[in-house]
Amino acid sequence: MFFHKQELQYTAKPKQPDAVYARRMQEILGGQYGEITVAMQYSFQAWNAHLPGKYRDLLFGIAAEEFSHVEMIATMIAQLLEKLPVEQSEAAIQADPTVGAILGGTDVQSAIVAGAGVRPVDSNGNPWQASYITASGNLLADFTANANAEMQGRVQVARIYEMTDDPGVRDMLSFLIARDTVHQQQWTAAAAELQAEGVEQLPVPSNFPRSRENRDVEYQFINFSDGAEAKDGAWAKGPTPDGEGEFSYEEAPFPTSPAVFPPPTQPDPRFFGT
Amino acid sequence: MFFHKQELQYTAKPKQPDAVYARRMQEILGGQYGEITVAMQYSFQAWNAHLPGKYRDLLFGIAAEEFSHVEMIATMIAQLLEKLPVEQSEAAIQADPTVGAILGGTDVQSAIVAGAGVRPVDSNGNPWQASYITASGNLLADFTANANAEMQGRVQVARIYEMTDDPGVRDMLSFLIARDTVHQQQWTAAAAELQAEGVEQLPVPSNFPRSRENRDVEYQFINFSDGAEAKDGAWAKGPTPDGEGEFSYEEAPFPTSPAVFPPPTQPDPRFFGT
Amino acid sequence: MFFHKQELQYTAKPKQPDAVYARRMQEILGGQYGEITVAMQYSFQAWNAHLPGKYRDLLFGIAAEEFSHVEMIATMIAQLLEKLPVEQSEAAIQADPTVGAILGGTDVQSAIVAGAGVRPVDSNGNPWQASYITASGNLLADFTANANAEMQGRVQVARIYEMTDDPGVRDMLSFLIARDTVHQQQWTAAAAELQAEGVEQLPVPSNFPRSRENRDVEYQFINFSDGAEAKDGAWAKGPTPDGEGEFSYEEAPFPTSPAVFPPPTQPDPRFFGT
Amino acid sequence: MFFHKQELQYTAKPKQPDAVYARRMQEILGGQYGEITVAMQYSFQAWNAHLPGKYRDLLFGIAAEEFSHVEMIATMIAQLLEKLPVEQSEAAIQADPTVGAILGGTDVQSAIVAGAGVRPVDSNGNPWQASYITASGNLLADFTANANAEMQGRVQVARIYEMTDDPGVRDMLSFLIARDTVHQQQWTAAAAELQAEGVEQLPVPSNFPRSRENRDVEYQFINFSDGAEAKDGAWAKGPTPDGEGEFSYEEAPFPTSPAVFPPPTQPDPRFFGT
Amino acid sequence: MFFHKQELQYTAKPKQPDAVYARRMQEILGGQYGEITVAMQYSFQAWNAHLPGKYRDLLFGIAAEEFSHVEMIATMIAQLLEKLPVEQSEAAIQADPTVGAILGGTDVQSAIVAGAGVRPVDSNGNPWQASYITASGNLLADFTANANAEMQGRVQVARIYEMTDDPGVRDMLSFLIARDTVHQQQWTAAAAELQAEGVEQLPVPSNFPRSRENRDVEYQFINFSDGAEAKDGAWAKGPTPDGEGEFSYEEAPFPTSPAVFPPPTQPDPRFFGT
Amino acid sequence: MFFHKQELQYTAKPKQPDAVYARRMQEILGGQYGEITVAMQYSFQAWNAHLPGKYRDLLFGIAAEEFSHVEMIATMIAQLLEKLPVEQSEAAIQADPTVGAILGGTDVQSAIVAGAGVRPVDSNGNPWQASYITASGNLLADFTANANAEMQGRVQVARIYEMTDDPGVRDMLSFLIARDTVHQQQWTAAAAELQAEGVEQLPVPSNFPRSRENRDVEYQFINFSDGAEAKDGAWAKGPTPDGEGEFSYEEAPFPTSPAVFPPPTQPDPRFFGT
Ligand SMILES: [Ca+2]
Ligand SMILES: [Ca+2]
Ligand SMILES: [Ca+2]
Ligand SMILES: [Ca+2]
Ligand SMILES: [Ca+2]
Ligand SMILES: [Ca+2]
Repeated sequence: MFFHKQELQYTAKPKQPDAVYARRMQEILGGQYGEITVAMQYSFQAWNAHLPGKYRDLLFGIAAEEFSHVEMIATMIAQLLEKLPVEQSEAAIQADPTVGAILGGTDVQSAIVAGAGVRPVDSNGNPWQASYITASGNLLADFTANANAEMQGRVQVARIYEMTDDPGVRDMLSFLIARDTVHQQQWTAAAAELQAEGVEQLPVPSNFPRSRENRDVEYQFINFSDGAEAKDGAWAKGPTPDGEGEFSYEEAPFPTSPAVFPPPTQPDPRFFGT
Repeated sequence: MFFHKQELQYTAKPKQPDAVYARRMQEILGGQYGEITVAMQYSFQAWNAHLPGKYRDLLFGIAAEEFSHVEMIATMIAQLLEKLPVEQSEAAIQADPTVGAILGGTDVQSAIVAGAGVRPVDSNGNPWQASYITASGNLLADFTANANAEMQGRVQVARIYEMTDDPGVRDMLSFLIARDTVHQQQWTAAAAELQAEGVEQLPVPSNFPRSRENRDVEYQFINFSDGAEAKDGAWAKGPTPDGEGEFSYEEAPFPTSPAVFPPPTQPDPRFFGT
Repeated sequence: MFFHKQELQYTAKPKQPDAVYARRMQEILGGQYGEITVAMQYSFQAWNAHLPGKYRDLLFGIAAEEFSHVEMIATMIAQLLEKLPVEQSEAAIQADPTVGAILGGTDVQSAIVAGAGVRPVDSNGNPWQASYITASGNLLADFTANANAEMQGRVQVARIYEMTDDPGVRDMLSFLIARDTVHQQQWTAAAAELQAEGVEQLPVPSNFPRSRENRDVEYQFINFSDGAEAKDGAWAKGPTPDGEGEFSYEEAPFPTSPAVFPPPTQPDPRFFGT
Repeated sequence: MFFHKQELQYTAKPKQPDAVYARRMQEILGGQYGEITVAMQYSFQAWNAHLPGKYRDLLFGIAAEEFSHVEMIATMIAQLLEKLPVEQSEAAIQADPTVGAILGGTDVQSAIVAGAGVRPVDSNGNPWQASYITASGNLLADFTANANAEMQGRVQVARIYEMTDDPGVRDMLSFLIARDTVHQQQWTAAAAELQAEGVEQLPVPSNFPRSRENRDVEYQFINFSDGAEAKDGAWAKGPTPDGEGEFSYEEAPFPTSPAVFPPPTQPDPRFFGT
Repeated sequence: MFFHKQELQYTAKPKQPDAVYARRMQEILGGQYGEITVAMQYSFQAWNAHLPGKYRDLLFGIAAEEFSHVEMIATMIAQLLEKLPVEQSEAAIQADPTVGAILGGTDVQSAIVAGAGVRPVDSNGNPWQASYITASGNLLADFTANANAEMQGRVQVARIYEMTDDPGVRDMLSFLIARDTVHQQQWTAAAAELQAEGVEQLPVPSNFPRSRENRDVEYQFINFSDGAEAKDGAWAKGPTPDGEGEFSYEEAPFPTSPAVFPPPTQPDPRFFGT
Repeated sequence: MFFHKQELQYTAKPKQPDAVYARRMQEILGGQYGEITVAMQYSFQAWNAHLPGKYRDLLFGIAAEEFSHVEMIATMIAQLLEKLPVEQSEAAIQADPTVGAILGGTDVQSAIVAGAGVRPVDSNGNPWQASYITASGNLLADFTANANAEMQGRVQVARIYEMTDDPGVRDMLSFLIARDTVHQQQWTAAAAELQAEGVEQLPVPSNFPRSRENRDVEYQFINFSDGAEAKDGAWAKGPTPDGEGEFSYEEAPFPTSPAVFPPPTQPDPRFFGT
């Protein structure tokens, strides 16, 4: 069960409205790596968890915080839009250049659809969609997805931090960035703990029998481009992270691999192909 | 530049057609974590790379291999669909129970739209979309995304491996699984190398000044759920992965944090809100 | 059958082109509550109607008018775009500030994709999609959806009316607003008539046996937030609109309701969960 | 702020797994009118509310309950999927007819993507999308949208209630149906209260000056189809719900209205039109 | 203006319901090349037409017929769904194998969302979307798009014709196929007439100055694959359709063309790239 | 198999960055008719081809070139974005009007999501989606789709050519336009060759028995609008392109055709319709 309190996790108050900036902030609310994504992603991972205990508690514990971040940002955006002018036509622009600047910089649907309100969309007005989230039932894969989500999120928040000098906005973002700092490291730590406890290991999924793999190619870097330096990296030589092998380097096309193209298919003529 | 050869990286030939299984295989072609996703993701990361040399060469080298995986799977699916029957109506089912089994198990658009052909969709018929991919310009974030993609991909291929016993299909999947094995470890190794070389570090992005974060909360686990065991994990105590702090544990709602809700906004009355 | 006449239901002629405003007008053509939505929504409701006679005639009668509104707005937008300049690059902006104002305010695809033409998209360029429409086979539910659609539509048209002072545009909008006025009331009246005639009633669907509901909670307001004033509304006390009960008020979490969480699921290990 | 408790609002436990039914239940979780929609819709309406007090408290109070419904259903679906078989190929069907029945009836991504887990999609596997929600800043319009959402939702839950005889599933659905019963009436009551208190009235938005409408057509039913009975309804004669006029009936095309088609537009030749 | 008559262009009456087939028919209603697509495509082309007269009249004349096809198919699908059983759970399957066959073969949302009604979706349940349509303002390009749409449509209708033996369904499809026959030829004829009259020519757009092209490569077939036979086609030798040149054949990579890769970009460090 | 070389097919180097123009160029990369579309479309047609030899070689030969065009444009866009300023808030606009011009004209996600990088989206920020592509298994239909794609593409590139005067950008576009010139004619030539060789003919599909069509209406132009000039075109009189008949002209509604509307459907009452 979820309960709501009419308080915010942290102050969300701009010094002054800025409708142009409101659009930018939509990205960290309703974008691919916005707060709606992480709130939903961690929730679905928790509902699909097969292990009771600390890992599931971790998922629920952070998921609900992310819903609280959704609320902080939504509240901030609504305030940033408070003075959004109605007149945004060409005539209004000529009368007041500020309007002209706002014209292209705000999300027009904030005005027309939401009446100067926040919307569940990204900074280009694309509606949030559930295909952004990941919940596979495999926790090592999913915690890696979560670490990535918090890294992408922190990069984005850092970018929009630099796009304003409103002290109220920056104060809230400094809180969210700090939470991204700890979350990206928590998912990293949790992924390490899964491996330390033997719950899961590289390669994910580790309980798929290795004998069923084509072991000839399981540690090869195969260079399908002509960059000469790919062979110098830790991915092309030296021990593999799973501790089971050594990376090797192969130039493609190498002689043994290519397989002949099968002949074209011949389906039923009533599919009217040619 | 990309060049094409009419050979496959590895044999893609089923022992016999299986239209029901063809639909399942669409997931690893056109799904969120299918081969189209990784081919496009690594390509866009390469085009956006700011560092010449080994990291970009790595991206190009694997990206083109992934396009070759797209082709292997597409070729396999077309063959699996070769004997797809045209008659799939109720009458046909009653005449032949095999048709009935195929009826709900195949992607109907394989028949109607593609004439027993492969399509750029997932196993539910959702068209592939570019919002699946990640290319942020920050390589540590992106290599973590890539490690996740290869983990999710290998989990999915392992699942569909178990859903067939066709030796030809399994042979091809054993090759793809092996490539996922190495790729997930290569991105992990590359992420480690970025850190070892000081290109990027945790927290990502590491060059955002830490002084701009709200440092009071940057290492706290804040438990927004009531699971008692979240405090026992490596994410709630002990050193943080960045080597800069110690995780701590807080129960929410904790007394100092909650902020008052701002008053409702009052936009221009010509937005006709209430 | 649908027939077309090369006349408009009402004059659609701007005093002068205004490409910036054209983008705003796209919302009421191709947006969630634009004219395409209502035209398609009423049509599908008519095709799915189970009652012959006045209700279905009502649906067909308004549906075809909405297609005529689609045409009026499309015609208007094309005219608003007629003088759209080709040069919209940075260089052009520096030469002529008017171009700069247009740059961010117009839909760039109007130029590049449609050659200064109208498009089936909303004001953010999102293509119209059929998931906007509602046609459930239950007329009371659907007429309520229709009343909502006309309310949302009139709110949006009123907002964009305020965003221009072009007399030709305003004249057309004054016609559309009047039609929204009557349509929202007609759906309200039709919903009332369905109930008066006993075709359908609250709660929708009224022929689902009430005995199958959990009657303990069918009239409770359960407050999952901590707002103190929700208990003062007509939704928390007094008679219910169906005339069958009294609303009551409960604070959550209340003692009797919560149920224990089920244990985590344990699917087949070959799904490779953790 | 949102907080989570590891309890459910009501018991969610099937008598036995039923993967085929799990797919059907996805509709009321992740469909156009599923619980994710109402949870998000009421939350965004609350964040955009301009009135403090009982109406906003109402929105927050129900919004958080809806997130709790999301959790109940997600938990139920995961249990329904617990025995989902891995082998779903043609060979498996021939060995066991039960598999054949499951084959087409389950969401294949439940298996391949989520490892026998719940997903944020509808019963056809379409990901939930934020374009389903409505939050306009006008409460009478939005409460009408909410009444509709609860009606559509109750119709759908009633339909899937009839599609199972599992007592555990039916018990949970009887709870959800009862909550839909009260919610649809609460939004109806709240809409009435807004009007009784003069906050908003028909036609929405009521503060748009009526003088700006084309008053000639604001109460006309114009019949664009040839159904003869549309004139017999309460939408074509008698007083209008706003108490300001009388509906009238007009056959289209009626003589005074049609406007001439404007001449085709002539944009800049560098758009290369014909 | 559009008007509606409660008649169909042609009889749409199945001999008997067939819910499985109904789903297949959705493709030609709401799919990429279904009737909604062509109705909307021709309408937007007409609204964007720059030439008055016969070409625009052609567009309007066929567009309205396509809306009438939408109605015929919608009416047919609703009838095919009339006997759709409610019970579709596993228990129902075991009691009656016919239900099992229907289970996976019907669109589940036809039942749950539309109450045994038609929906604006394709045969996989993907909602129709306006990004399917083409209306560029250039009639030769657009008429070619239309010819393609009618060809794709006729292929699909022919495929589903073969999937049923219901005489009522086949009778309606024989009408639609005949209309596709003429429409694909009419667009072909209209494209030819545009060229014969000098309105537009190959290459489209013909009024873009040829001198601005890189004329070195404007007639070369460049073979980026290794298929040996591409050089034997009419696209690699002989006169070009525009009558202005000769096709030539080049193997890639050919020596003169490749350009050096530019160095990586170096954006502002506050984008926090690596 | 695909291989990559770190060279470009043609120089892609702007004289100077232009972030506003970068957004426009996204259309020809990730739009409905951008390079991703044609690269994927020709590839899927090749994988679905049923004829070995020159037609399939043609498809592979051009497909891989299109992937090389994707790379040229991606590389160009990244360079156009290189000087994208971070500060884009209102304050920054007031300090520097150039920023104001950029504000609305650039894709905000280029900055926030990609760190001044290229993205797989169109000029409105809509992610590329696979529903743009066509691969039916019928080559005459598909080559017509390809001719259309190259025409639409050339129109769009010509439009954006006119929107810049950067000599580096124009030089690259002059190359792409020339390739569109030849490609649109090659698909036209290939479509003619299919017919000349008897592989396929009008009407597509030509092997569907004409006797199964309703031959009464297979050559009629039926005018569903009231435009008087449609009868003057080559689509309403004279021989048909298939050489089998004569077009005729009919005014709708004509007396013999209209069919009675079927009575409304009566599904199971447990669908709770009205
Ligand atoms: Ca967060
Ligand atoms: Ca791969
Ligand atoms: Ca309207
Ligand atoms: Ca609910
Ligand atoms: Ca048609
Ligand atoms: Ca190209």
